[in-house]
Amino acid sequence: MDRRHFLAASGLAAASPMFAATAAAAEAASGEGLFQTVNFGPDGLGLSPREYAARLGEVVNASNLHPDYYSLGGPVAEIEKQFAGLLGKEAAMFVPTGTLANHLAVRKLAGNRRRVLVQAESHLYNDSGDAAQMLSGLNLVPLAPGQATLTLDEVERWVDRSGGGRVETKVGVIAIESPVRRLDHAMADFGEMRRISAWAREQGIRMHLDGARLFNLPLHSGKKLPEIAALFDTVYVSLWKHFNGMAGAVIAGDKAFIDGLFHTRRLFGGSLPQAWPTVALVSGYAETYERDYAESWRAANRLIGLLEAQGRFRVRKVPEGTSRFYLSATGVPLGALAERAQARGIVLPWPGPDADAFPMQVNPTILRLPPEQIAQRLADSLEG
Amino acid sequence: MDRRHFLAASGLAAASPMFAATAAAAEAASGEGLFQTVNFGPDGLGLSPREYAARLGEVVNASNLHPDYYSLGGPVAEIEKQFAGLLGKEAAMFVPTGTLANHLAVRKLAGNRRRVLVQAESHLYNDSGDAAQMLSGLNLVPLAPGQATLTLDEVERWVDRSGGGRVETKVGVIAIESPVRRLDHAMADFGEMRRISAWAREQGIRMHLDGARLFNLPLHSGKKLPEIAALFDTVYVSLWKHFNGMAGAVIAGDKAFIDGLFHTRRLFGGSLPQAWPTVALVSGYAETYERDYAESWRAANRLIGLLEAQGRFRVRKVPEGTSRFYLSATGVPLGALAERAQARGIVLPWPGPDADAFPMQVNPTILRLPPEQIAQRLADSLEG
Amino acid sequence: MDRRHFLAASGLAAASPMFAATAAAAEAASGEGLFQTVNFGPDGLGLSPREYAARLGEVVNASNLHPDYYSLGGPVAEIEKQFAGLLGKEAAMFVPTGTLANHLAVRKLAGNRRRVLVQAESHLYNDSGDAAQMLSGLNLVPLAPGQATLTLDEVERWVDRSGGGRVETKVGVIAIESPVRRLDHAMADFGEMRRISAWAREQGIRMHLDGARLFNLPLHSGKKLPEIAALFDTVYVSLWKHFNGMAGAVIAGDKAFIDGLFHTRRLFGGSLPQAWPTVALVSGYAETYERDYAESWRAANRLIGLLEAQGRFRVRKVPEGTSRFYLSATGVPLGALAERAQARGIVLPWPGPDADAFPMQVNPTILRLPPEQIAQRLADSLEG
Amino acid sequence: MDRRHFLAASGLAAASPMFAATAAAAEAASGEGLFQTVNFGPDGLGLSPREYAARLGEVVNASNLHPDYYSLGGPVAEIEKQFAGLLGKEAAMFVPTGTLANHLAVRKLAGNRRRVLVQAESHLYNDSGDAAQMLSGLNLVPLAPGQATLTLDEVERWVDRSGGGRVETKVGVIAIESPVRRLDHAMADFGEMRRISAWAREQGIRMHLDGARLFNLPLHSGKKLPEIAALFDTVYVSLWKHFNGMAGAVIAGDKAFIDGLFHTRRLFGGSLPQAWPTVALVSGYAETYERDYAESWRAANRLIGLLEAQGRFRVRKVPEGTSRFYLSATGVPLGALAERAQARGIVLPWPGPDADAFPMQVNPTILRLPPEQIAQRLADSLEG
Repeated sequence: MDRRHFLAASGLAAASPMFAATAAAAEAASGEGLFQTVNFGPDGLGLSPREYAARLGEVVNASNLHPDYYSLGGPVAEIEKQFAGLLGKEAAMFVPTGTLANHLAVRKLAGNRRRVLVQAESHLYNDSGDAAQMLSGLNLVPLAPGQATLTLDEVERWVDRSGGGRVETKVGVIAIESPVRRLDHAMADFGEMRRISAWAREQGIRMHLDGARLFNLPLHSGKKLPEIAALFDTVYVSLWKHFNGMAGAVIAGDKAFIDGLFHTRRLFGGSLPQAWPTVALVSGYAETYERDYAESWRAANRLIGLLEAQGRFRVRKVPEGTSRFYLSATGVPLGALAERAQARGIVLPWPGPDADAFPMQVNPTILRLPPEQIAQRLADSLEG
Repeated sequence: MDRRHFLAASGLAAASPMFAATAAAAEAASGEGLFQTVNFGPDGLGLSPREYAARLGEVVNASNLHPDYYSLGGPVAEIEKQFAGLLGKEAAMFVPTGTLANHLAVRKLAGNRRRVLVQAESHLYNDSGDAAQMLSGLNLVPLAPGQATLTLDEVERWVDRSGGGRVETKVGVIAIESPVRRLDHAMADFGEMRRISAWAREQGIRMHLDGARLFNLPLHSGKKLPEIAALFDTVYVSLWKHFNGMAGAVIAGDKAFIDGLFHTRRLFGGSLPQAWPTVALVSGYAETYERDYAESWRAANRLIGLLEAQGRFRVRKVPEGTSRFYLSATGVPLGALAERAQARGIVLPWPGPDADAFPMQVNPTILRLPPEQIAQRLADSLEG
Repeated sequence: MDRRHFLAASGLAAASPMFAATAAAAEAASGEGLFQTVNFGPDGLGLSPREYAARLGEVVNASNLHPDYYSLGGPVAEIEKQFAGLLGKEAAMFVPTGTLANHLAVRKLAGNRRRVLVQAESHLYNDSGDAAQMLSGLNLVPLAPGQATLTLDEVERWVDRSGGGRVETKVGVIAIESPVRRLDHAMADFGEMRRISAWAREQGIRMHLDGARLFNLPLHSGKKLPEIAALFDTVYVSLWKHFNGMAGAVIAGDKAFIDGLFHTRRLFGGSLPQAWPTVALVSGYAETYERDYAESWRAANRLIGLLEAQGRFRVRKVPEGTSRFYLSATGVPLGALAERAQARGIVLPWPGPDADAFPMQVNPTILRLPPEQIAQRLADSLEG
Repeated sequence: MDRRHFLAASGLAAASPMFAATAAAAEAASGEGLFQTVNFGPDGLGLSPREYAARLGEVVNASNLHPDYYSLGGPVAEIEKQFAGLLGKEAAMFVPTGTLANHLAVRKLAGNRRRVLVQAESHLYNDSGDAAQMLSGLNLVPLAPGQATLTLDEVERWVDRSGGGRVETKVGVIAIESPVRRLDHAMADFGEMRRISAWAREQGIRMHLDGARLFNLPLHSGKKLPEIAALFDTVYVSLWKHFNGMAGAVIAGDKAFIDGLFHTRRLFGGSLPQAWPTVALVSGYAETYERDYAESWRAANRLIGLLEAQGRFRVRKVPEGTSRFYLSATGVPLGALAERAQARGIVLPWPGPDADAFPMQVNPTILRLPPEQIAQRLADSLEG
């Protein structure tokens, strides 16, 4: 089963973003209203256009919102201030995408020391079109293939090797992604990150964190956001994954780093003339996210217990995992199960071709129904 | 009077975008409802956040809108198709900003012939942070300083000079902006553009049009959109200036040019995860824009006649002008006049420091009141 | 007459470098030995391969020469020290070509302020393949078309314009070429350079001098080398034009600028494994060059007087000129005249197609014969 | 013992190139004339300046040499033709350094497919200052760490991974170095190269060979030069390592690739105004190199037999090795041994700090004395 077929089976247009479309489709299929669907696909709420437009209207009318001007001022400035605060950094800047956030961060951190050590499995190395290499002439060196954790040992070996070439090729930045999207959102080991950070500072090497989904780390690592962020000179956090923007990211760092960086954003074509419709909801959701996520996992654990007790479901957790667990069921094809669950207002995410389990994402939509009811609807879906 | 002071005088926050904020301020000051303000600032309607959110809700609810997925599909695809059609091109691609649109166009058109001839007064040369130079290594050569029209004569001389260097430095692209923002939106001469285009095609030099405000040209030049667009390989049109998006632009060209270009958009960080909230209104406004603009100028000409007859107003038109005329008045400071007019629901744009006239922008908000009423309110504003 | 035809008429292979080949050809045609030809083509002596190899053998045997190692140490280090001294700078670095010298200088001077103001007629703008733009992403802005002298007025206007764009595009460097190769080696005005330099230092803008033929300036400007060089942060001087290297250039500047720059030379592919055979003669010729050049002009002025008195020759000097004057003769085609002079051991340079005068270069080969004898041989060449 | 100390111990200036300087020092120390030293340091003859200048004089006087003009024509053109012929390619172009040769090759081959797979131990990855990354925006992916041979298996995995990113990041080139300088000149496996080449051609991926020391491969691999070169689109060969140029390299490829490439050489600052003094000897040495090298190894093997029989010497060959073997001796420090051998006209190369054996380079200087005599002199050097 490929994704296209799955979407077709679910009555979804293939080109539409699965997460939002399935929320909308579940609304339609289940006959329930807005904000009712339990959706195990997205990182956040996966708001449908109607849900998003409704919330946007509320926010605009409640707040006498002043628009931003080329992504300066207005709600954009508020978000920048809010995230700097949450991360314990002096300042932050909005950018429209995470691709640009990572790029601008490593570009400026590197300066004239143009080697950047990255995880071989990182988003920056694999899914950013080699922009930092092509447009900024950086050399991104892919380390630790297959692993979420980069070790100080490997870092030291490569810094040493870079120093030993016939021509100077200095390492300027170590960029770490955590959680790692390509590895089921597994975490990089905190202790190893701390060791790398301490050593790098002695060497004058700068540290960047691709923390697109950083706000999930405290629950699983026992470390607070500022404690993690303090290991890094710059931190990128996505605004649309957990906080229900339609796009956007922030780069947080010290004042000297952020000052004037909007000129670079502008020249890259990343200063939206008015960004507010894209991020007006972010501030509200960010305020309560950590608590919501913790509650969501309490509910998820209760649900997992119920499903395992049911007999025909199997759950697999991810080692060093964060938001994801895998769910499979015996005796019914995944496509059929997803279709029936959707008709009951529960969206199961597309498992990919040849997969034998759903990659379930824990997010606050799970709080829309009691775990018992979700378990019951899923059990009912086994039957038809 | 500087802009900050003017905005303060008008009760506006300095950081807010003038056009939208003043619409909102005029709503407040005049006690009138949404969509009532006549606003001589923006290229389009200058929708306030409340106005925008209201329209967005209508569109989403009326249309069962499917969201785009990383700027692919959904309303984005519809707009791409619509604008390709309006311009007589085979295909088009959405990008979030005009800065990126111009950059991606000249970058791809140039290929290995890396000199790009531009007007010295163009947005691409002056207001894009030298992105095409810094990130794509192009040499943009600024010609015709002070002029809207680039002549074939000057083009030929520079192509010849570039061919005569000790090392090959070929001209790959000629990029023309029309109307020219920095020259009061004056038009480049159509005949000269046609001559340049014909000659460039013989030489294998590609042509790009920065047509951010292209949809104003037909009324003033007597040439239809596809007739103008046909002179160029690629055409950029802004989506937020005339068509009330909150951001966005399209690049139109032939299929071979547009195919696969979204990879480059992505690596530049320009593929918004969901662009629909930014452009969902565009399609509707684009459909009727040319007619609305023509009607707006009929009303504007009637208004100008009335104001000139009044005795204390003076109007100056721009040679080869498009959407702008200048308005001044004797016996009352511009700041005071603007403040009083705003209290009557009419926004006069910030004239810049030391200016002696308002740079009036003709747009469809003029159709919200009969010219006679606008003239009367402005006359009343002379008095206090 | 094009160059190929001229060379053919002169019995020279078309692909050979005119200056050296004609020296060799004149050796052959005139039956005279090495170091006898008076050659009005080159900037220096235009040594033939036999002449060069003979001198190289002498130098190597006389000096117990230690080779350089990847362009470090040996005669290369000596030349760097010598030229730093002659120019009054702290340090200097060898590079194999002037193209690379200019590029490395403006690249490092610019840093993050990426606009570089240059003369429209400069070698850097016209004859360097846009390398600084293509490889280093700089924006070179061509000013003062047709002029040798860039004025402070024009500089200020462009710095101002660059500061006024929507995105910061700062001017980081002003690069001036003097003498200007494309303008018959005319000089830029010293007073204007001094004004620009003083103003630029206030602005934090760095100054670079393309002084490929700088050592000709003192005689014509009345300013000593260090006095000129002091206006600039970096100065490039060619090693092969006046000093009879076979290639090579130096960049001189302060210690902080030169330190570590060899890494950049290396990565550009410009660190010759052994450069000594290319520059081993330079040091000796550089020591006496200023005096030799002054003597050469004394002889040239005497020769010019004799030729003008002869009746059939016409001489034209270049305004603000340095090493070049133009010579024409009535009643005999230039090609025939050149051919006959060559048979008498005097090389007249290729005048270019459609030219009506020889672009005579004053260099120390003129000292190989008394002016009277040169005048006589040229007069004889009028007859056949 | 570090290199500086070793050179000091040997009476050599630290900054001088070890190979040439030691030849000169051995000349002096041993009291023998030119061309007498047996030098186990260089890839070629390691000519001293006097030796080089003497040969250059002979060549220039014997050949009526016409100089090149900015590296076009003259001896440069002859070498280009000669090497194209030796490698079985249509054309070739001279460049001053191997760094530039590799860079220009992968830059042009890559085009818009900007990932380049390389060996982690390659010169291009480690010793070229990241030029291809910094100046040309390529992403060089380091594979097979610690290995001379890159396997098709690893290549396929990385091409696959590159194709699977969210944004297209195509592999455009596979660049292989053989012999590998950093791995004691070990060879990459021919069969594996052939498999990679065949597969790459199916994928439209281009192949580049860093064959700086390619002319040593036929003897050890049993494959002829054109047979090896045929696996690659472009091949770089050094002119100074085996053929006693003072600098220089060629890039060989098909006509379409080489045509016009000199413009890029020029803009990189790599077109020496006159290159002939640097390469005038190359043609002669290249003609006989393969035969000379084979004879040298016959002599070396005889010498190795004699040394091993002597009792106090130990020889270690390199697996998949080419020109290098290791020599150690018991009972005498390496530094002392080198010093005494040098006084007998035999240069032993600097072994590096903490090394316990000399990295002996087999080259035609071994043919200057019978193996028996070399063995005897080395045995004598054990004693004092």
